[in-house]
Amino acid sequence: MNDKFNYIDSIEKKLINYRRDFHKYAESGWSEFRSTSKIIQILEDLGYDLYYGLDIIEPSVVMGRGNDNYVKEQIDRAIKQGASKEIIDKMKGYTGVVAVLDTKIEGPTIAFRFDIDANDVIESTEEDHRPYVEGYCSVNKGMMHACGHDGHAAIGLGLAHTIIRYKKELKGKIKLIFQPAEEGVRGAKAIVHKGVVNDVDYFLTGHLGFNLESGSFAPMTKDFLSTTKIDVEYKGKGSHAGAAPNEGNNALLAASAAVLNIHAIPPHKDGVTRVNVGVLNAGVGRNVIAPNALMKIETRGENSDLNEYVYRKTINILENIANMYDLNIIIKKMGESITVNCDENFSKVIEKEVLQIKEIKNIIPNKILGGSEDASFMMDKVQKKGGKSSYMVFGTKIAAGHHNEKFDFDESVLGTAVKVYTKLLFKFNRKWN
Amino acid sequence: MNDKFNYIDSIEKKLINYRRDFHKYAESGWSEFRSTSKIIQILEDLGYDLYYGLDIIEPSVVMGRGNDNYVKEQIDRAIKQGASKEIIDKMKGYTGVVAVLDTKIEGPTIAFRFDIDANDVIESTEEDHRPYVEGYCSVNKGMMHACGHDGHAAIGLGLAHTIIRYKKELKGKIKLIFQPAEEGVRGAKAIVHKGVVNDVDYFLTGHLGFNLESGSFAPMTKDFLSTTKIDVEYKGKGSHAGAAPNEGNNALLAASAAVLNIHAIPPHKDGVTRVNVGVLNAGVGRNVIAPNALMKIETRGENSDLNEYVYRKTINILENIANMYDLNIIIKKMGESITVNCDENFSKVIEKEVLQIKEIKNIIPNKILGGSEDASFMMDKVQKKGGKSSYMVFGTKIAAGHHNEKFDFDESVLGTAVKVYTKLLFKFNRKWN
Amino acid sequence: MNDKFNYIDSIEKKLINYRRDFHKYAESGWSEFRSTSKIIQILEDLGYDLYYGLDIIEPSVVMGRGNDNYVKEQIDRAIKQGASKEIIDKMKGYTGVVAVLDTKIEGPTIAFRFDIDANDVIESTEEDHRPYVEGYCSVNKGMMHACGHDGHAAIGLGLAHTIIRYKKELKGKIKLIFQPAEEGVRGAKAIVHKGVVNDVDYFLTGHLGFNLESGSFAPMTKDFLSTTKIDVEYKGKGSHAGAAPNEGNNALLAASAAVLNIHAIPPHKDGVTRVNVGVLNAGVGRNVIAPNALMKIETRGENSDLNEYVYRKTINILENIANMYDLNIIIKKMGESITVNCDENFSKVIEKEVLQIKEIKNIIPNKILGGSEDASFMMDKVQKKGGKSSYMVFGTKIAAGHHNEKFDFDESVLGTAVKVYTKLLFKFNRKWN
Amino acid sequence: MNDKFNYIDSIEKKLINYRRDFHKYAESGWSEFRSTSKIIQILEDLGYDLYYGLDIIEPSVVMGRGNDNYVKEQIDRAIKQGASKEIIDKMKGYTGVVAVLDTKIEGPTIAFRFDIDANDVIESTEEDHRPYVEGYCSVNKGMMHACGHDGHAAIGLGLAHTIIRYKKELKGKIKLIFQPAEEGVRGAKAIVHKGVVNDVDYFLTGHLGFNLESGSFAPMTKDFLSTTKIDVEYKGKGSHAGAAPNEGNNALLAASAAVLNIHAIPPHKDGVTRVNVGVLNAGVGRNVIAPNALMKIETRGENSDLNEYVYRKTINILENIANMYDLNIIIKKMGESITVNCDENFSKVIEKEVLQIKEIKNIIPNKILGGSEDASFMMDKVQKKGGKSSYMVFGTKIAAGHHNEKFDFDESVLGTAVKVYTKLLFKFNRKWN
Repeated sequence: MNDKFNYIDSIEKKLINYRRDFHKYAESGWSEFRSTSKIIQILEDLGYDLYYGLDIIEPSVVMGRGNDNYVKEQIDRAIKQGASKEIIDKMKGYTGVVAVLDTKIEGPTIAFRFDIDANDVIESTEEDHRPYVEGYCSVNKGMMHACGHDGHAAIGLGLAHTIIRYKKELKGKIKLIFQPAEEGVRGAKAIVHKGVVNDVDYFLTGHLGFNLESGSFAPMTKDFLSTTKIDVEYKGKGSHAGAAPNEGNNALLAASAAVLNIHAIPPHKDGVTRVNVGVLNAGVGRNVIAPNALMKIETRGENSDLNEYVYRKTINILENIANMYDLNIIIKKMGESITVNCDENFSKVIEKEVLQIKEIKNIIPNKILGGSEDASFMMDKVQKKGGKSSYMVFGTKIAAGHHNEKFDFDESVLGTAVKVYTKLLFKFNRKWN
Repeated sequence: MNDKFNYIDSIEKKLINYRRDFHKYAESGWSEFRSTSKIIQILEDLGYDLYYGLDIIEPSVVMGRGNDNYVKEQIDRAIKQGASKEIIDKMKGYTGVVAVLDTKIEGPTIAFRFDIDANDVIESTEEDHRPYVEGYCSVNKGMMHACGHDGHAAIGLGLAHTIIRYKKELKGKIKLIFQPAEEGVRGAKAIVHKGVVNDVDYFLTGHLGFNLESGSFAPMTKDFLSTTKIDVEYKGKGSHAGAAPNEGNNALLAASAAVLNIHAIPPHKDGVTRVNVGVLNAGVGRNVIAPNALMKIETRGENSDLNEYVYRKTINILENIANMYDLNIIIKKMGESITVNCDENFSKVIEKEVLQIKEIKNIIPNKILGGSEDASFMMDKVQKKGGKSSYMVFGTKIAAGHHNEKFDFDESVLGTAVKVYTKLLFKFNRKWN
Repeated sequence: MNDKFNYIDSIEKKLINYRRDFHKYAESGWSEFRSTSKIIQILEDLGYDLYYGLDIIEPSVVMGRGNDNYVKEQIDRAIKQGASKEIIDKMKGYTGVVAVLDTKIEGPTIAFRFDIDANDVIESTEEDHRPYVEGYCSVNKGMMHACGHDGHAAIGLGLAHTIIRYKKELKGKIKLIFQPAEEGVRGAKAIVHKGVVNDVDYFLTGHLGFNLESGSFAPMTKDFLSTTKIDVEYKGKGSHAGAAPNEGNNALLAASAAVLNIHAIPPHKDGVTRVNVGVLNAGVGRNVIAPNALMKIETRGENSDLNEYVYRKTINILENIANMYDLNIIIKKMGESITVNCDENFSKVIEKEVLQIKEIKNIIPNKILGGSEDASFMMDKVQKKGGKSSYMVFGTKIAAGHHNEKFDFDESVLGTAVKVYTKLLFKFNRKWN
Repeated sequence: MNDKFNYIDSIEKKLINYRRDFHKYAESGWSEFRSTSKIIQILEDLGYDLYYGLDIIEPSVVMGRGNDNYVKEQIDRAIKQGASKEIIDKMKGYTGVVAVLDTKIEGPTIAFRFDIDANDVIESTEEDHRPYVEGYCSVNKGMMHACGHDGHAAIGLGLAHTIIRYKKELKGKIKLIFQPAEEGVRGAKAIVHKGVVNDVDYFLTGHLGFNLESGSFAPMTKDFLSTTKIDVEYKGKGSHAGAAPNEGNNALLAASAAVLNIHAIPPHKDGVTRVNVGVLNAGVGRNVIAPNALMKIETRGENSDLNEYVYRKTINILENIANMYDLNIIIKKMGESITVNCDENFSKVIEKEVLQIKEIKNIIPNKILGGSEDASFMMDKVQKKGGKSSYMVFGTKIAAGHHNEKFDFDESVLGTAVKVYTKLLFKFNRKWN
């Protein structure tokens, strides 16, 4: 493997440049037009078969995507910031790309998945924030790579280079999935529904950071929370609050009642549940009975049944309150992820392989995620089809917590992660157990 | 009086031009920089002594004014739209102007008050809306003269012209008060606190429209609702809704509880009360325990005691809920008006005088206002100092209800109103009872 | 008339004895078995045709009556306290009686109505309470004549004596209605539905006290509040609050949510509305998710539309909350009254007549009731059939407010009221306008 | 040991008689006057030193005990049902007894604890309920031994007999604690505060049933939930709901608001919490603003910190709501228990010993309690003083769940449990590790 590791060391600067370019032109979920365009151009040059737009996205299960006007604005900006208009036209409004290398030699299908979207965060412009100081701070206000997906995209490109370089040593089929809209767990489901992972034998993905130090590595992760994200709109009727209070159908009052009842949903004897109305915006003016309300809500559960329990209760409350206050209600699913378990035996093999990489100094046997990740949809599908899947964590020193305006990370993790994926690719490219 | 009435007829076109100019460059309360500048220029040319800025506004009781950045933006736009930079500099950020004509001959002090601000309404651009068709539709999006204060300002200027023309026939002192920020009942109190009406013997103001037909006139008005407008901010603590729900201090949940309890304040045996939380904006993200909430609230009462009853209950709820959820609370008074009664004897005299104007065909003896008006502060102060005050209504056909995006009125009311004010000026410029 | 007035003076002691006997054996609404039995015995002796039990009560619209067990207990006690078992058997469980005198001579039908029930109040046994001191304090704990219906029943009996004495001077038909269950406005509707007042030309009733002094008299009353009384039961499912909170359907939590939303029903622009959840009893144990809740609720309105507005909103909230918490709901109507207006011309005649009685020294032209009275059902029915009706108030000094545990009144009002009814009987027994 | 086991077999009938007597005269917590009196009489005959009343109860930390009137009624009934008046006089109103056998030979102090109170349950009188059929059904309505404490008391007496029989073989000191008021976790704390377990080296207690089959035995138990029980009274001000709604301070509305906010207390990241308002009784009449409310509340936590978290939040809500509605609030602690861990090494020894009893066929290594038990106070105190303690479970077939109106158990567990306690007594009466 040393030839490959040396090669990867030689492209470190390139990886950092990729990462910083993505960082500078940060794009939120379903808006990654420039990022996707850049990735496509690089992969095209490398000779991959490329699939994107409606080839890889099932629009009927797309969640949390802006309306046509919004998408149009995002595209316009992407083009101004260097995206290829020709590629974007082919994307048909949907971001993300899947690169396939088919060796035509019999062998397993291995898929690697990298998420590429930024967060809705205003990046710090203080003097202790390296991206600002070194000039790759986000130029798109309110969008920032505060969770390291810029790094994930760069790692994916690094792996793409390495694969092509050593292509002759490989067999079977390799898929590189650059997924949009992981934040808010919105994108993976639409890719799974298009069948992209149906033929996959080995599925590998992961995340950098998560409070693991540089040199630490977790071959598997547990405790993915099942979650559902919804936006709920109440539409009532305005009226003058002084002159005709009885003529209004008060959406603000109704939403307030819903909030209290939702937060009072009883805990479940079988385990952890969560519910949060995180955002409530209602009303048009102080002296008007509020005709409108918008709530951003999420439910979670230790497993899918528990999430379903609290989700059903929430919907039931929202609908009955709407009826009670004579309101129209619109409920939109904005995101979703499920629980999944990594395969323990598979992770043991990963652990053994990875220990042969000198940068990996410390194994965390079973990292608790304690959050939600929509890679779970892909992992679950692969497992149900009889394949193996794992979600790994690559340690790296971070400058501030994930989603914080000063998030940044030690870029040496980029090369390390490419080495891990490369090592595992060559392991699983032949039979291993 | 016929000479004066003929003169007023001769300036009708000028009045309409004034009104349409104010309409086109509509400015919301405390943003009337261009309007004030224009009024000042005209009154300066006419030779009045002028007072404005901190000369007539007591900043410590100013309510509902934007922050410095906002004021700066308003000023910049006003200058772009033709305001005099020199005048604006002297205004020191505060709008409104008082013109004084001191005849130096012994006699009473008579004040006339005109409010000049627009509403936060997006004006209609449909083909049945005359301001749009005839090209004087508001160019300031979200600001529209939808309550006729453009007309009030024009009437005030018309009266200013007439006074100067017939200045030799007058004695005592005359004050023309062009008041900012009547909408939301924000501006009058600050003028009263500066002492502007302390020396006034007769105080006259009024409103056009209010569902009275052209030719109808109400010499006095009753049932001013006492009201208080507040903005309430809750500041709590955010935390991850899934991972650490107990670490947040949930301002959204608290605000919801406050809303329900506020709307459940019991009615009062002594008469009508109202309370409304018209706007609630809370939260920063779906998966974050909301650290912030803003509520726009108003209370009303048939009289000051009833308003005070419901206001006290509201504040009490807001503060205890803040304490309950461990939040900081900031309560800002955004507007206020009191109840006042017009003087019945005084209005009898007004009625008798006004019936001598041929345009006035119908007297409505005691118009029910059924809303709130901060002229009440000025009227009350004048009465308490021993003077007389009345709030009159000038009938005019309107195209749509007050505050509606298609509001417009029959401009013949402008001249009629100037005649009314002029007739009353010459009546009360000498002893009348 | 003096012969009649002298006769009435001569039976004053009898009236007082009647009143004190009813007071001592106070019986709450639908429990007036002993009171009814006593009245029947007296009226039978006087020779009236008597109708009672299911002859005068339509059971399908009876409201707020106890279950069979409760009724049985009431009957047993009544018999122990001197009621005639034979009469009670004929009552078939329903209290109240109508006495008819048909002169067989052509003439109008005049009805007088007297309510006979006590309140659910524990009577004072302090030394400053005359009924206690003089030995006619209620012997039925928790039942007390704290609203003067003991006096009403005595007045009705006094009138019955007088009528028989002067029977030869009368024509037409006379009805004396002794109504059960006025408290909680439960009894009148069932009598009206049985047709008892369908043929009535003149209907007279009234109340003693109401803060009018002895010697004062109101010939009519206004502002009857329309009201509806309901009992609402929620039935959910209990579960262990620690071990399985999710398995319960929490009726206590649901009722709490209902209470808040009901009290937040907006006021109505057209006038006064009221709603109150006066009693809430829920739960079986501290550590059990409460499977049950009972709410006692009333709605009121200045008129029937306003009561209907707030009643509909209340029911809507209750039903949607039940659905929201997966509860069964049982709503029972426990009482009801409507708005009615007395006939002004009719009351003018009453006033003129009554002024001829020396005990009446002061006329209150139009007494505000400001409460609810189910005589309104009878008055309304009579008016709709073309008859006249009025609700009068007989002033008398009271020892404490109505419904207070120390309520008592100056018994001289008994004779005065019999005189008023007698005077009006002889007036309306012939044509009067 | 066989001599002892044979002896215990010989007194089986006696044990069953004891149990059925306690069952028939079931007494709720702090009302066990007859039960205590009977136990005292038996233990006196056996020759124990006895301590009871204020000797073993610290009244300042007694929780959930009725008022003097209630206690008096309980005593009167107990005497009617055969309690010794003389003994009861010495009890000074407090139930429970501690029997001490001091061998005067050096050796350890071993304590055994038996709870003796019944539940607030109405016992079934259906034909499939053995206590009813066989004539030992509770004669005290609303009090029933539905949790097997009648068995515990009988086991304690069985052990007392055995100890006296084999007294010469023993050394050190033996304490038999018959504890009142375990239901609602009210009694143990007051005994601990009196110092009763301060000198104890080995502390043993346990429970029969808990879904373990006859023949099964758990040598230790885990997951005691920490809990606090409170009664909360709100005192407001009544007023007429129609005529003067503003004059009331509405305790029912306030309690409803408190309930919603309490049930909306956020879950805690560190583990399970529970809160329940199980009972709410408020109001005096449908048409009165409710002046009063009573809530029965409990909080629980996986550990004391978690219970404290939810308890603090609950109190904070209750107090702020009281302030918000201008109410007086009275909070009474009605019960309390803490978390405790059994000693694993100690339980291993127990396990080994107990396996030598032929009736024990199956060991459940670490039974999850999942509820609350105030024996925890005693166990914790013993452990903190350096002693050992364990809470064991004795399997027995039950006829219905604990606290159910048809609860009953296989009485063969009585003898088995006496054998267990006896075996352990002789083990720990000498040094064991």
